[in-house]
Amino acid sequence: MAASSSFTLQTVVSRTVAVAGGHGSPSPSPAEHLAIPTGFSLCSLAGKGVKSSPAAAPFAASSPRGKRPGLRRPVLAPVRATAVETVEKTATALVDKSVNTIRFLAIDAVEKANSGHPGLPMGCAPMGHILYDEVMRYNPKNPYWFNRDRFVLSAGHGCMLQYALLHLAGYDSVKEEDLKSFRQWGSRTPGHPENFETPGVEVTTGPLGQGIANAVGLALAEKHLAARFNKPTARSYVILGDGCQMEGISNEVCSLAGHWGLGKLIAFYDDNHISIDGDTEIAFTEDVSARFDALGWHTIWVKNGNNGYDEIRAAIEEAKAVKDKPTLIKVTTTIGFGSPNKANSYAVHGSALGAKEVEATRNNLGWPYEPFHVPDDVKSHWSRHVPNGAALEAEWNAKFVEYERKYQEDAAVLKSIITGELIPGWEKALPTYTPESPGDATRNLSQQCLNALAPVVPGLIGGSADLASSNMTLLKAYGDFQKDTPEERNVRFGVREHGMGPSATASPSTARVRPLLRHLLRLHRLHARRHEDLRAVRGGVIYVMTHDSIGLGEDGPTHQPIEHLVSFRAMPNILMFRPADGNETAGAYKVAVLNRKRPSVLALSRQKLAQLPGTSIEGLEIAEKAAGELRKEGKAVRVVSLVCWELFDEQSDEYKESVLPAAVTARVSIEAGSTLGWQKFIGSGGKAIGIDRFGASAPAGTIYKEYGISAENIIAAVKSL
Amino acid sequence: MAASSSFTLQTVVSRTVAVAGGHGSPSPSPAEHLAIPTGFSLCSLAGKGVKSSPAAAPFAASSPRGKRPGLRRPVLAPVRATAVETVEKTATALVDKSVNTIRFLAIDAVEKANSGHPGLPMGCAPMGHILYDEVMRYNPKNPYWFNRDRFVLSAGHGCMLQYALLHLAGYDSVKEEDLKSFRQWGSRTPGHPENFETPGVEVTTGPLGQGIANAVGLALAEKHLAARFNKPTARSYVILGDGCQMEGISNEVCSLAGHWGLGKLIAFYDDNHISIDGDTEIAFTEDVSARFDALGWHTIWVKNGNNGYDEIRAAIEEAKAVKDKPTLIKVTTTIGFGSPNKANSYAVHGSALGAKEVEATRNNLGWPYEPFHVPDDVKSHWSRHVPNGAALEAEWNAKFVEYERKYQEDAAVLKSIITGELIPGWEKALPTYTPESPGDATRNLSQQCLNALAPVVPGLIGGSADLASSNMTLLKAYGDFQKDTPEERNVRFGVREHGMGPSATASPSTARVRPLLRHLLRLHRLHARRHEDLRAVRGGVIYVMTHDSIGLGEDGPTHQPIEHLVSFRAMPNILMFRPADGNETAGAYKVAVLNRKRPSVLALSRQKLAQLPGTSIEGLEIAEKAAGELRKEGKAVRVVSLVCWELFDEQSDEYKESVLPAAVTARVSIEAGSTLGWQKFIGSGGKAIGIDRFGASAPAGTIYKEYGISAENIIAAVKSL
Repeated sequence: MAASSSFTLQTVVSRTVAVAGGHGSPSPSPAEHLAIPTGFSLCSLAGKGVKSSPAAAPFAASSPRGKRPGLRRPVLAPVRATAVETVEKTATALVDKSVNTIRFLAIDAVEKANSGHPGLPMGCAPMGHILYDEVMRYNPKNPYWFNRDRFVLSAGHGCMLQYALLHLAGYDSVKEEDLKSFRQWGSRTPGHPENFETPGVEVTTGPLGQGIANAVGLALAEKHLAARFNKPTARSYVILGDGCQMEGISNEVCSLAGHWGLGKLIAFYDDNHISIDGDTEIAFTEDVSARFDALGWHTIWVKNGNNGYDEIRAAIEEAKAVKDKPTLIKVTTTIGFGSPNKANSYAVHGSALGAKEVEATRNNLGWPYEPFHVPDDVKSHWSRHVPNGAALEAEWNAKFVEYERKYQEDAAVLKSIITGELIPGWEKALPTYTPESPGDATRNLSQQCLNALAPVVPGLIGGSADLASSNMTLLKAYGDFQKDTPEERNVRFGVREHGMGPSATASPSTARVRPLLRHLLRLHRLHARRHEDLRAVRGGVIYVMTHDSIGLGEDGPTHQPIEHLVSFRAMPNILMFRPADGNETAGAYKVAVLNRKRPSVLALSRQKLAQLPGTSIEGLEIAEKAAGELRKEGKAVRVVSLVCWELFDEQSDEYKESVLPAAVTARVSIEAGSTLGWQKFIGSGGKAIGIDRFGASAPAGTIYKEYGISAENIIAAVKSL
Repeated sequence: MAASSSFTLQTVVSRTVAVAGGHGSPSPSPAEHLAIPTGFSLCSLAGKGVKSSPAAAPFAASSPRGKRPGLRRPVLAPVRATAVETVEKTATALVDKSVNTIRFLAIDAVEKANSGHPGLPMGCAPMGHILYDEVMRYNPKNPYWFNRDRFVLSAGHGCMLQYALLHLAGYDSVKEEDLKSFRQWGSRTPGHPENFETPGVEVTTGPLGQGIANAVGLALAEKHLAARFNKPTARSYVILGDGCQMEGISNEVCSLAGHWGLGKLIAFYDDNHISIDGDTEIAFTEDVSARFDALGWHTIWVKNGNNGYDEIRAAIEEAKAVKDKPTLIKVTTTIGFGSPNKANSYAVHGSALGAKEVEATRNNLGWPYEPFHVPDDVKSHWSRHVPNGAALEAEWNAKFVEYERKYQEDAAVLKSIITGELIPGWEKALPTYTPESPGDATRNLSQQCLNALAPVVPGLIGGSADLASSNMTLLKAYGDFQKDTPEERNVRFGVREHGMGPSATASPSTARVRPLLRHLLRLHRLHARRHEDLRAVRGGVIYVMTHDSIGLGEDGPTHQPIEHLVSFRAMPNILMFRPADGNETAGAYKVAVLNRKRPSVLALSRQKLAQLPGTSIEGLEIAEKAAGELRKEGKAVRVVSLVCWELFDEQSDEYKESVLPAAVTARVSIEAGSTLGWQKFIGSGGKAIGIDRFGASAPAGTIYKEYGISAENIIAAVKSL
């Protein structure tokens, strides 16, 4: 590990030194993910330029060993951020010009695409400018620099705001031609932000409320790593709109953010009073700031978001000073600011302004330039971010070299978390079972796997939605991640399944492997988020879902998922596992941990299942029994377990033929769930035994019998073929 | 209409007169749904017994005609509720005894089933007793009496509380034997409340947060009907727990309830500080009451919910006095109150106490009785609710006879809403199309259908999640349902898809036909609720989902549902329609309106589709084109539209054979969505053309082409077979 790490480190340093020399890095490669966090804390550039800042010098004291690696140790003394030079306060006239540049890049791109949302960028350009030009610390030429501040546009439809800012800041992902191909096939500027399409975009957003949930996940990961490795990491900034505020998920995650005291999270609420159906008065009259006060946030109101630059700067300063609470800055803006006939109306929310109104807006804001033009003084003003960002990263990389010399073990652990590089032989930690091993519920076998993995996969942290004891998901060697114990690895999400998904999903950007543990009875809720979960960060999340199907028994139909597995199987880019016994459960974990590009879902039983010589799907014992009976009658019977449809589909035709020979047409599928989709495996001539109605409230054995998931039925079905 | 209505009315009157005579009605029949709302408002029985109450005498003034029927008219003068006699304040000792009866019925039932949740009933028994014995107005022998107060147990796991109360109140649905078969196969007392299993249960609950959303829907319907027919209707009471409060959906609907000023909604928050994983301190430290203040609710705190009867009574009185806001009564209780060793711990939340602890609890609370025993004095105290309830309903029915004489038209409309009885010939209002009709997007054709239905289906009301203009769902002849215009029929849900589902779902109990209009891009969120939606009230809801699949174009993958239709097709008890043109859209509406037992989902396109001579699925024009080409080559090609898989499956084998002849094995399916499930129709030899990956951001035509949903591909596929 150490060797491979130090090699890795050399790679990083040489590459980033090159970047510091001004050579842009090419399109992202795995190597670019190998950025390491700095020891110094953040300082505000708001209107004052970069100052040297207090920070931790992690290299003075020797590393006191905690009872396990990576525990909090005394905070250390500051050093200078020498690489960043002071910048004079930018003249307001130039800020105006920069802000209007952002507005018109958005206007022009939407106009050219004749599709998009110009209203938000026009209203939020001032806060956008201050964040990217004055406040945030990032390296345009290495969007993956680990200690960057993160920005999430929860109101993702306004993505031209972010594309314009990335363009001005010097990111290679958004060149002028990218702005001109906004919303076109194959472009790096899709209609909503996609983190894997556009380096510089942290998470995919668009479905309202999603981004704030992701941001809470980022802030959670930052707080955890900062505590575990004594590294104050970066801040997370987010812009959310009225729509995000109306969505229940945002209340879930903001309640958690308040509970956890995520002081590094600063959210801007774009209070523009306009939704698609008109004034928010028609549906949204609550007191948002008072609600956030109740959720334990610090709240600030910027009354003039259209050009009150100093108001915005002061609010950010105030927010940074509040260490123990997240901050909501309500910024009152005018949607479509500058458009004489469409500003402050839904007309500017989701459509191009139209040539005539664009012209009127140019005149109104005194903008004589061609479409997509960035004035020279604006360009040169923003140009400092490339060298500054490179210097920040270089300094921080240099510091890490020193850090690793002092704390090799912690440095190695931290790097493995950042890079997702697994400790060689990690998979040997997984348990194995024989037919002689005692039968058990797969939720319990899952617990054995999780606790076996925790020590060898240091980035593995997760939590349950108030069902840890039912999910069997506690990492026993660790405590609870809480406001005052953020170094721990068990997250208590409370009964907040929607929020749990995205907030865990975003975190892989810092902690790559993170199981998301929950209860299948609530699958249909997490379900709600799955689409965004998957889009938000490709992979890194393991959803553990227990109490599968009617096996749940007495709790009844509302708690018995029947059709949910099908809907996961129909979903692109996810692995849906339904392991039958210990070895299949351990195998599922191995594949899940290795799959970085695809999240995994494990559906686990509450009832005890035998350890089988072969393996099989849920209802497996029943199938084995039936097969036994039929074999006695001299019939040749094969029981096949389709643990994961997606992986089976990816096998060679030869392999598929070897498992399901075309010659064998008498096929019966058995699953305690919807039969939809099974025809693909059993063919026209086959029979599907399953559950195509809601469950029932009764002891599990009774429901299985009444629903015909029984050896008798299987035998009858097979004989009928 | 008049004739059939007055006949109906005779039925109602004679039946309910019989009930007033003391003869219990048998198990619910359609006729029993034909209850009509009273003219008088509600009065509190809390500790004071029934008093005659101020109310509207709808029979004095003649009915001033509004610009359309059913508009608000001046409030009318009060009459006496003569049928209800005064009851003396119940001695506290007897209340204690009644409350303990409730506790032990719950304890004994859970013990016998060795499964269930005793903690909540033990803690909430006092508020339960006061609601059912002193406050609520209902008729035990007609659970469907229209003007009853409604109770929703949002914390549905505590259902033994409600079963015990229904038992004491004299409902035929919960006899002693039903309590003894709690959570058993075929019983009327399932593990969570199911409205269609247990008359007296208003809506199915259990998934946390669901019940409060349903209650908001009930209160919405009450406010609407009260305004439209000048009838103050009943109140809605709900008990919700910490889990409900943590769920985002509850914040969505409570924000709406505050916005709408639903003064008839009174929610009890069981503040017991315990969740499954332990003290709520680990995950839930927000200030709930302050949040509800921010949402525009009136809030009260009852500090002693365990035996502070007068505190609870006073809180309810205060809540009733607040007419323009819903009220949250935070009631601090001890979960498992009375259990010496398990009270105030998670141990009592979800498991039987165990024989030893049951015994200890009996001793602790001084309860000498056998399991399931109801002491005589408690029994006789509760016995008054049968005659009282019958009298309330009889008086109100009598009043309605008089009302109908005065306002025949309004009475007829109101009855058709209550009974769901449709105006003969209503379906003739639906538009028809010919191949010559101009092509159009099905979302626009849907709008034509909705506006054609609105006048002939008076109970048709609905709303959009801030996308009315995109869903094309406004009922143009009507205004917005708002706090001060509740008689209108367009509901503005804001961006709250989760809340929209259940709150509309509950409403059919008063307004039977209610389309729930929303945007397919958010389908995966509504999705989250669908399971509960369907369980909550069987049918009555039409989900209109527009902007289907990649046809959405530039908004991109997060907004393009690919796998969602499959998951609806996999779900029991729902009709999933994907109409191809005007006639299929109108047909889908006809089936949807007629289907009372199954909700319907209509997936509609944003892009223009031709009116076809035949019909076909999405991608239909492409299929027709391909078929044309192939026919030119002399091939016999049939294009089949599978508008609704569920309905097709229900047809006779003969019909199925006539549509998809077994002899024809060269089959190609085309759908702009997941191919999962199509094998069922195309067989082993067939080819499925669809989309098994996420969408993309580009003009729709480009994506269709790039994704191979094209005539060329279809022709190639057919030829390959």
